[in-house]
Amino acid sequence: MGVVVRNIERASAETIAGLAECGVATVHEAQGRKGLLASYMRPIYSGARLAASAVTISSPPGDNWMVHVAIEQVQAGDILVLAPTSPCEDGYFGDLLATSMQARGGVGLIIDAGVRDIRDLTEMNFPVWSKAVYAQGTVKETLGSVNIPVVCANQLVNPGDVIVADDDGVCVVRREEAETVLAAARKRVAAEEDKRKRLAVGELGLDIYDMRGRLAEKGLKYV
Amino acid sequence: MGVVVRNIERASAETIAGLAECGVATVHEAQGRKGLLASYMRPIYSGARLAASAVTISSPPGDNWMVHVAIEQVQAGDILVLAPTSPCEDGYFGDLLATSMQARGGVGLIIDAGVRDIRDLTEMNFPVWSKAVYAQGTVKETLGSVNIPVVCANQLVNPGDVIVADDDGVCVVRREEAETVLAAARKRVAAEEDKRKRLAVGELGLDIYDMRGRLAEKGLKYV
Amino acid sequence: MGVVVRNIERASAETIAGLAECGVATVHEAQGRKGLLASYMRPIYSGARLAASAVTISSPPGDNWMVHVAIEQVQAGDILVLAPTSPCEDGYFGDLLATSMQARGGVGLIIDAGVRDIRDLTEMNFPVWSKAVYAQGTVKETLGSVNIPVVCANQLVNPGDVIVADDDGVCVVRREEAETVLAAARKRVAAEEDKRKRLAVGELGLDIYDMRGRLAEKGLKYV
Amino acid sequence: MGVVVRNIERASAETIAGLAECGVATVHEAQGRKGLLASYMRPIYSGARLAASAVTISSPPGDNWMVHVAIEQVQAGDILVLAPTSPCEDGYFGDLLATSMQARGGVGLIIDAGVRDIRDLTEMNFPVWSKAVYAQGTVKETLGSVNIPVVCANQLVNPGDVIVADDDGVCVVRREEAETVLAAARKRVAAEEDKRKRLAVGELGLDIYDMRGRLAEKGLKYV
Amino acid sequence: MGVVVRNIERASAETIAGLAECGVATVHEAQGRKGLLASYMRPIYSGARLAASAVTISSPPGDNWMVHVAIEQVQAGDILVLAPTSPCEDGYFGDLLATSMQARGGVGLIIDAGVRDIRDLTEMNFPVWSKAVYAQGTVKETLGSVNIPVVCANQLVNPGDVIVADDDGVCVVRREEAETVLAAARKRVAAEEDKRKRLAVGELGLDIYDMRGRLAEKGLKYV
Amino acid sequence: MGVVVRNIERASAETIAGLAECGVATVHEAQGRKGLLASYMRPIYSGARLAASAVTISSPPGDNWMVHVAIEQVQAGDILVLAPTSPCEDGYFGDLLATSMQARGGVGLIIDAGVRDIRDLTEMNFPVWSKAVYAQGTVKETLGSVNIPVVCANQLVNPGDVIVADDDGVCVVRREEAETVLAAARKRVAAEEDKRKRLAVGELGLDIYDMRGRLAEKGLKYV
Repeated sequence: MGVVVRNIERASAETIAGLAECGVATVHEAQGRKGLLASYMRPIYSGARLAASAVTISSPPGDNWMVHVAIEQVQAGDILVLAPTSPCEDGYFGDLLATSMQARGGVGLIIDAGVRDIRDLTEMNFPVWSKAVYAQGTVKETLGSVNIPVVCANQLVNPGDVIVADDDGVCVVRREEAETVLAAARKRVAAEEDKRKRLAVGELGLDIYDMRGRLAEKGLKYV
Repeated sequence: MGVVVRNIERASAETIAGLAECGVATVHEAQGRKGLLASYMRPIYSGARLAASAVTISSPPGDNWMVHVAIEQVQAGDILVLAPTSPCEDGYFGDLLATSMQARGGVGLIIDAGVRDIRDLTEMNFPVWSKAVYAQGTVKETLGSVNIPVVCANQLVNPGDVIVADDDGVCVVRREEAETVLAAARKRVAAEEDKRKRLAVGELGLDIYDMRGRLAEKGLKYV
Repeated sequence: MGVVVRNIERASAETIAGLAECGVATVHEAQGRKGLLASYMRPIYSGARLAASAVTISSPPGDNWMVHVAIEQVQAGDILVLAPTSPCEDGYFGDLLATSMQARGGVGLIIDAGVRDIRDLTEMNFPVWSKAVYAQGTVKETLGSVNIPVVCANQLVNPGDVIVADDDGVCVVRREEAETVLAAARKRVAAEEDKRKRLAVGELGLDIYDMRGRLAEKGLKYV
Repeated sequence: MGVVVRNIERASAETIAGLAECGVATVHEAQGRKGLLASYMRPIYSGARLAASAVTISSPPGDNWMVHVAIEQVQAGDILVLAPTSPCEDGYFGDLLATSMQARGGVGLIIDAGVRDIRDLTEMNFPVWSKAVYAQGTVKETLGSVNIPVVCANQLVNPGDVIVADDDGVCVVRREEAETVLAAARKRVAAEEDKRKRLAVGELGLDIYDMRGRLAEKGLKYV
Repeated sequence: MGVVVRNIERASAETIAGLAECGVATVHEAQGRKGLLASYMRPIYSGARLAASAVTISSPPGDNWMVHVAIEQVQAGDILVLAPTSPCEDGYFGDLLATSMQARGGVGLIIDAGVRDIRDLTEMNFPVWSKAVYAQGTVKETLGSVNIPVVCANQLVNPGDVIVADDDGVCVVRREEAETVLAAARKRVAAEEDKRKRLAVGELGLDIYDMRGRLAEKGLKYV
Repeated sequence: MGVVVRNIERASAETIAGLAECGVATVHEAQGRKGLLASYMRPIYSGARLAASAVTISSPPGDNWMVHVAIEQVQAGDILVLAPTSPCEDGYFGDLLATSMQARGGVGLIIDAGVRDIRDLTEMNFPVWSKAVYAQGTVKETLGSVNIPVVCANQLVNPGDVIVADDDGVCVVRREEAETVLAAARKRVAAEEDKRKRLAVGELGLDIYDMRGRLAEKGLKYV
């Protein structure tokens, strides 16, 4: 505790933008179904969709001091990822901190705790995925750390990892795997486009994916 | 496990349409306050309102193979009702399966588990009531059954039963009781209309329902 | 049980209106971070924002008889606050009761249980903050009380206390402290305005709040 | 609502006793992994193990009137299975009702709600599997039904079905399948005995179940 | 925040001892079914049964400084009642604090948060009813208050109120009502004894409480 | 997925034994309050207390195939740590697998899912800390991995890390930090012994830890 790592590596802006376009469900599949944060992480408003480099925060419960420290480390295109050291739903973050984030080029917040001022955040187009909406304030008394690996909503997030988030939830992509995952995700998008067309005209998945034989073999009976 | 029932009986299209108009709260009251699925079953977007015949799926946790099997059994106006055999919030269903459903005339999904691609599903006007939104994918390894009775979110659903769903949640009406329930629901709608008018001009429920005597008898004291 | 208190004191309309403008997060901070209801109390639709005098209801689980009794005690600008005597998510309240409330000048409902007809309530602009949306009906068999102190979602609410509610949740302000809290909240709003401007041009909280010295003293290390 | 079915069929005492010996986990496997109540149904004390015929109760939330009605229908070897019509954790049942049950030969209670007096129940050796321990009392105002099919903790239970319960939880066996399930369960017990011996001397499941080939085929890599 | 009330009134030792004997379920009924803490408050070991005067603590989340302050206010026969100012399950209390409590004559802890060292506490016969068992430590940085009214697990507790706790949970009795409640509880115990005897020989509640007429009147049908 | 790491490093037997003696709460404090698994991880019986080297399993939901694979990798003194790839409470593990584990010298199981046969496991003295007790069986269809880093109940566990578990829960200690943590834990135990003696004779924490000045400085008021 009490450490701030100043220099972190980030994925390239093109890779990050590409991952944003693919979306959470596709990226998650493309990287072998790993990296998905718990389903209780929900967006405060619908329709936001982004990818960004993680600036991580490990914070004591009910203490948002480290958020201020972290914002100084934020570069354009970064997102804060806050994991409290024990379960907490206090509102660590509101419109003032969002103003500060936007002034630095920060694009959002992932928080395994609470957030407040969501009307203002919505008007500011500042997206947040959180465990709770809760106006309960926090103190500034105890140190935490910035840009160390954290476990957030049951997933390990390293500083500089790429966060992909949309209405389906939040997924983390290892920085060093980001390009590979993007390539796989794009392939998947293309393949899905073809399947979508065939399904749209009434062809069945049973036939497209050639499942009938294996189903019969396993013993499926039609009565 | 491993059974697909091909032929199921359905309520008439008129009855189903009538129930949709009445809505969940009214239908639930009209059939004696039974058939309501657990309150954690929430719509992925607001404003959807439907009634439809249930094509049921009993599925292993984290395995959506049977969804493909079920879609072949779907007729125009049907809705899928999926109950996993143990608690699960994986995303069994996304935009490709919704495309397939719409191509067959299917109108929605009730799932006691997770769903993904909700941005696409919203744009497609494909309503889903689910326990979770979660991008976690599933496998296709183990058989389940289609069109057998299932317990979904603490309610028994038989294939062909009528599902009524709106912003208030999800209610199941036995196929063989659907007409009677519709009649009772319509009576209820008419009666409520009258009460609404009286309440709107300031009359009190205490007087409309003639409650004052019974309240006094039970010992209510005004101080 | 079985008591209705007819005369309760209320805060002044100006004070109440002022608190509504400040919003939940600010009011909660301004009164020393107390009075916030549990975070599971969520609005049925986004964007509502109000302050109102509490007419309280203590009700048996699954029995909404006292709601009818309470509405007779409602004056223009009041809000119902219902706490069941044991945990319950039944739908105590729907569009007919909302119609009656609006006819009496009532402005909303806070309920540590369920609500139904939320499509109608949304169209009527009748805001509700509740623990659940659930169409399950209630009976009218057992007495409760109106306008006694209740504990609702883990907070004590006295009749006549001011309820402040918006997208962030629900906060209760003691009637006798309402003016003082409003003054403190307004001061806070003004102070925040200044900080918002400084943050918006890129100044850091670390500097505005002069945190660097104390962080160093506690041992924060930059690496 | 408001119906009491007096005559129900029960499985034979021998079959029931046999199922009790096999225990929940074995019976559940033996009948194809169905019939298991939700995992939140926990025993009030460790070590109880029984099988019994279900006398079912559908009860309003917070109203235990029907328990009294049901006890009159109880025969020696029966167990009460109570499902409230909406979620509730009130204490429907305590030591007086347990005294009455034992006087009639009743052997326990399965309740998707609360129970109280658990110190007394433990001393009486009256086992209960419940959702909650909660002293909150109930009223006697509204009718329910006895010996109709109910959904309890996400499983359908018909009157006369066999309930098997132990420290692992609660499983329901259809009355008409009870003998067949018992035979399958006994076969399973015997087979397990053999495997237990082999495992106890250090043989691996990988070899006993001959898994190595199929694992390699699926692509498992040892590094 | 930041207030310690030194002098609080307590109920008499005889009244407190009497309430302990009656137990939670009986006391709760005797005072009109009020004062019961939420059902998630569970004892760390079975069999403890006590009544004691509440020394209350309002504490920030994850900060147990005020526990040390509170122990100085404890007299023989007192119990600590800790309510965090926002939801928290950190382990505020362990064997060292229990040693200190026992040295001062303190008899237990009620905490709407976590506790740790439960093996030691069990060996020390120091009973705790808590929301969680959790080894997560706390800090000592922020003030709270001692002996002010708190809401603990959804019930208001005033300093000096009598806490009754056993395997059924925790109930609070207002200090000024303690004698009256004890009298009512004793009456109830006596009445139950008579009913227990009648039930034990097979008489039915239906007859003892004379329910058959009212059931018939409400329309109960036997088939 | 589909990888088994055969050779992992382990801490020394002495270090592991030392950590077991210190217990979860002390070890967790000694390593700076990190590594504690979520509080829902509870032992199936009271009194177990151990430390052991982690053999990790990443497993699909409802599929226990990898448990068989993992047991072959177990050495004397190891414990299995199973993390499903999405939330699941199925019973992955029962008495047969425990028999196999004990035959190999394995000492327990940490599982972020369900366990069954807990009566047998208790008799065998095979301790398990789990999220649920649930008899629901699993399949053997899909590969996972053994001895890769996993996130279990919100904590990262590497193969070979030391698991410390007792009635307070479960804590993970990095293998490479195990000796240092043990030294710190022992220091803490010694220091606590001294404090325990002083507290036992009635000295106050306020004085032992010299808190009065700082409390006064923060503004604590005695009234």
